[in-house]
Amino acid sequence: MTTSGPVKKDAHPFSREALEALLTRRFFYTRAFEIYGGVAGLYDYGPPGSALQANIIDFWRKHFIIEEEMLELDTTIMTLSDVLKTSGHVDKFTDWMVRDTKTGDVLRADHLVEGVLEARLKGDKEARGLKASAAPESDADKKKKRKKDVKSAAVQLPDALVAQYESILAQIDNYTGAQLGELIRTHAILNPDTGNEVGEPVEFNLMFESSIGPTGQIKGYLRPETAQGHFVNFARLLEFNYGRVPFASAQIGRSFRNEISPRAGLIRVREFTMAEIEHYVDPLNKRHARFDEAKDILVNLLPKDVQASGHTTLTKMTIGEAVAKKIVDNETLGYFLGRIYLFLTAIGIDPARLRFRQHMQNEMAHYAADCWDAEIQSSYGWVECVGCADRSAYDLSVHSKRTGQKLVVRQALPEPIVAERWTAEIEKKLFGPRFKKDAKAVEDGIMALDEQQLLKLKMDIANGPTPLKLADGREFEITSDLLTISKRVFKETVREFTPNVIEPSFGLGRIFYSLLEHVFWSRESDENRGVLSLPSAIAPIKALIVPISSNEQFTPVVRQISAQLRKAGISCRVDDSNASIGKRYARNDELGTPFGITIDFATVQNGTITLRERDTTDQRIGKIEQVVAVIIDLVEGTIDWTEACKRLPAYTGVQDVD
Amino acid sequence: MTTSGPVKKDAHPFSREALEALLTRRFFYTRAFEIYGGVAGLYDYGPPGSALQANIIDFWRKHFIIEEEMLELDTTIMTLSDVLKTSGHVDKFTDWMVRDTKTGDVLRADHLVEGVLEARLKGDKEARGLKASAAPESDADKKKKRKKDVKSAAVQLPDALVAQYESILAQIDNYTGAQLGELIRTHAILNPDTGNEVGEPVEFNLMFESSIGPTGQIKGYLRPETAQGHFVNFARLLEFNYGRVPFASAQIGRSFRNEISPRAGLIRVREFTMAEIEHYVDPLNKRHARFDEAKDILVNLLPKDVQASGHTTLTKMTIGEAVAKKIVDNETLGYFLGRIYLFLTAIGIDPARLRFRQHMQNEMAHYAADCWDAEIQSSYGWVECVGCADRSAYDLSVHSKRTGQKLVVRQALPEPIVAERWTAEIEKKLFGPRFKKDAKAVEDGIMALDEQQLLKLKMDIANGPTPLKLADGREFEITSDLLTISKRVFKETVREFTPNVIEPSFGLGRIFYSLLEHVFWSRESDENRGVLSLPSAIAPIKALIVPISSNEQFTPVVRQISAQLRKAGISCRVDDSNASIGKRYARNDELGTPFGITIDFATVQNGTITLRERDTTDQRIGKIEQVVAVIIDLVEGTIDWTEACKRLPAYTGVQDVD
Repeated sequence: MTTSGPVKKDAHPFSREALEALLTRRFFYTRAFEIYGGVAGLYDYGPPGSALQANIIDFWRKHFIIEEEMLELDTTIMTLSDVLKTSGHVDKFTDWMVRDTKTGDVLRADHLVEGVLEARLKGDKEARGLKASAAPESDADKKKKRKKDVKSAAVQLPDALVAQYESILAQIDNYTGAQLGELIRTHAILNPDTGNEVGEPVEFNLMFESSIGPTGQIKGYLRPETAQGHFVNFARLLEFNYGRVPFASAQIGRSFRNEISPRAGLIRVREFTMAEIEHYVDPLNKRHARFDEAKDILVNLLPKDVQASGHTTLTKMTIGEAVAKKIVDNETLGYFLGRIYLFLTAIGIDPARLRFRQHMQNEMAHYAADCWDAEIQSSYGWVECVGCADRSAYDLSVHSKRTGQKLVVRQALPEPIVAERWTAEIEKKLFGPRFKKDAKAVEDGIMALDEQQLLKLKMDIANGPTPLKLADGREFEITSDLLTISKRVFKETVREFTPNVIEPSFGLGRIFYSLLEHVFWSRESDENRGVLSLPSAIAPIKALIVPISSNEQFTPVVRQISAQLRKAGISCRVDDSNASIGKRYARNDELGTPFGITIDFATVQNGTITLRERDTTDQRIGKIEQVVAVIIDLVEGTIDWTEACKRLPAYTGVQDVD
Repeated sequence: MTTSGPVKKDAHPFSREALEALLTRRFFYTRAFEIYGGVAGLYDYGPPGSALQANIIDFWRKHFIIEEEMLELDTTIMTLSDVLKTSGHVDKFTDWMVRDTKTGDVLRADHLVEGVLEARLKGDKEARGLKASAAPESDADKKKKRKKDVKSAAVQLPDALVAQYESILAQIDNYTGAQLGELIRTHAILNPDTGNEVGEPVEFNLMFESSIGPTGQIKGYLRPETAQGHFVNFARLLEFNYGRVPFASAQIGRSFRNEISPRAGLIRVREFTMAEIEHYVDPLNKRHARFDEAKDILVNLLPKDVQASGHTTLTKMTIGEAVAKKIVDNETLGYFLGRIYLFLTAIGIDPARLRFRQHMQNEMAHYAADCWDAEIQSSYGWVECVGCADRSAYDLSVHSKRTGQKLVVRQALPEPIVAERWTAEIEKKLFGPRFKKDAKAVEDGIMALDEQQLLKLKMDIANGPTPLKLADGREFEITSDLLTISKRVFKETVREFTPNVIEPSFGLGRIFYSLLEHVFWSRESDENRGVLSLPSAIAPIKALIVPISSNEQFTPVVRQISAQLRKAGISCRVDDSNASIGKRYARNDELGTPFGITIDFATVQNGTITLRERDTTDQRIGKIEQVVAVIIDLVEGTIDWTEACKRLPAYTGVQDVD
């Protein structure tokens, strides 16, 4: 996919306000329930926004699901609490919040500390006569996107305190609630909105809770991610894939996080669309069959050791080199980083503003083998838009343990493995009389011992009766007549293992917003004439049909052209409003519509129409059929604008008012 | 879109059990959280199910949104309670439930009465020696799909009681909770699962409730339909459409209903995907510009007067005739019935098992002008799958009234309208001294009076001070010096009106399930060899690639063919499992895969592959490029199987084991 025209040149500095005004004016999105006053963190997508999102999803589905023969899933949003208890979300999917002691307003504790300390540091810099923005970008800067906006005052701080603040900010993600509370007290942090004190941090679970059915006895949560819906269906997925790994499942759908106080537009919301892939792989073989196709892709990397040394310098490297040097843990992870790069740049993300940042050791879940975030730079800083983690066998193991269902791959071994193992053989008939109703529990307790424990037990009972402690804490006396512990030969013909999971997880709303920042610019002639240079394959509407006036003569040809385009699956829009041609084109530049067709009296007389390209405002002329064929080829990506210009001569008639 | 082959012939009677076993075995869908025991009314779609659903949605989007230039929306699922209070859902979106007095089990009251009385009638018929199924289908039969399954006993009832039961069943939708309670007591209806008595019916709201944000102060519900998301955005949509009607908004998304005790598979679920269109139209002009394209479509109609006379005979009629005879209220409604018919039959619904049933007067909301349900016949009876209602100005009016936001269309009149009206002119300077802080309220109270009320007030105050009652109940004395009431001439240049809404609303899960029943059949040779004859455009996977053995020689050509198909956007699947060719084809017949490609040693030697058609099991042969080109044309619908056979000769080699 290529953009339809030559690269845009933006003569004006980027303004988030100008972009947001455009996006609201053209109804890309708006606050949900706006006429009721709205609710923070909830947004509705209007016609161009939802078409753009649908096109991104459609491209994602082709790029990942169809291209890689992934198994698509569509699981429920309403999730049984047990499932999320097992996954750890019920206990750990929390943020710390504090309440204003007078107004009762709720603030996120880490964001409060971050916002206030950063404002004090900024004030210090001002007092010292330094420009705040001149400082090199730090990890703390990166996080500014999510902190509370706090006004700074130019007050100089002692050098030691500056160092202390910087140290706190560097590890803001690592504090417990109690530690955050202590920081708030020690550094006299108040609610900047009111100047009031705040209370002790309390934990707040970010999941929306509800109950299923009329009795209220079945507790449910709105899923905070789609991933658990994959894992609970693993056994069926594996069977669908003929019992073999590697394979991947994929799902696109809505997820929910009840954020404490969302303030960053589409970057931090309470309801969002995700696209998640769970790729199941043999833990002993994380190579990827199509790695060759990804190995030469050049990406910006920010590995963990660079970050640990306090830097954010990017390393430009091929995926192949990164895997060879073990910077990226394995081929499969590397392959997905490459595919993510191709997806994001194909839809229009600027490669220069895209980096892969590795999680630091303390950022990563304890079970994860490696994790990289695709971060996109926008006016909110570097924002995580895709996470790509090797989650090891964690998820499948915990669900299997909780439900007692085997979630494993069984693989015939090329040749049987013969192995010796210490094994206990039980004198069953002695167990009943000796342990009565506890016989089974004692037997299970013995069977649960590993080789080392068995060996120890063997030696202990040789010396006399030995207490055996069960998992529930009860103890039973074991004597040597009860069992024989010896080394036995086993022949294994099947290998059984829990696959590891590599998970690329896409936040579509964040990608959507970052993309709009990357493709937005203003005409050199007029900074109020915004353009969204969306690639034509994902532009909400591909072609605008503009009759030069409301003359009824134009109606049949307008219908004919729009019918032809629709038949080819190309979404088009007729603008027969009373606005001038120039106004109508300007409006559609804001909508990112790549092509415009003008119908005038020459159309009625000669059957010619003109074709306008959005980025260059070039106009070409041709017969209706020729122009329609060129548009179809352009949208399908089989030709680019240069090629189109070879097929259609330049229009030399009355010029558009650009 | 056409099915890929000739019409299937099903030699075996339909078995829901066989179909459901197939759908579970091939993971079209399964109970959500199955490994945790599942939850009633929640289902997960597996790979073929979600691909089928995605293809239906894609076709829907092209058929409605792109074809009709509708404005797509994507609004939040989490909905502010105020919005649903205004729409009436908080108060009225309820069912009556009863509790088993001993076990506490919850039952839906109307379903309980229905189930028990129908079982008694069935027992009566058996006792009289009549076959229950011999009775003509009635509306009550139609509803069987949703009632509780109750076992019947062959007990004859008095004739009068039979008549009474039949009368109750005919109006089961019309009873209040108290009336249902009375029926339960009068007819000694017990919980058929336990034989226990049940308590009084209580109202249960079917919306899932949650709260937004950390304080719990903002109440939200999961939307029970997507429609309110359209209505609250009406002003922005109208602006996007240059201020003009008619136009339509459309939305595809998840909705939720907390059903009391769902038991009918995908037909009655707690979470489901809907596709809804809201078409905004001038109440004075419900004609449709493209009506001509729909007027000749022949449909099965079941108008309300036929039902009122106790019959269910279908009338076959063109849309044009139905509108001309005023059976269908207006052109726009008729146009959508035609478009719904085209959509459903194109994806594979059997036209003979599709009817449009008009709502009876008492079934319809009081504000609705007309309403038709597209009902599809399946083993669950005739099930409503698409509702198509003319909702008049109801929704926009209530939201406008509640929020004070104007939700109207302003239309320049071709020539101004001059009219006389009784009007009050207020002596403003007297109001402050006389009414103090209530001056504004009194003024507003006068301004809110209509012409008739003003005329009455004029006469009353001429006779002396007159009390004026405000909306809040307070009264103020009005005297003739406060205002002048006279007839004035107004010139209106703009007409302002609230558009009417025509709403086609699709339950995609119900369509999905009904479709699977319609396309399911078994091979004549073996009733265990099921086939799903899905049209190729919506089949989950279009082509199966089958190397005849696991010989490594085949790997490059398998990769080449699958890459070529994927490049054309055609989803394919390689089956290189150890199963026999026959087994592998049988498996894919169950998945509805229309085309199979076999790769054997001739492929390696001569570059030829065979192409198998699912419905006929015909096999053709050709060069790789030829066969791939034919598949692309077949999937895109530009040729049918007859045409394909002209391009590829029959395969006369070793036959498939069908």
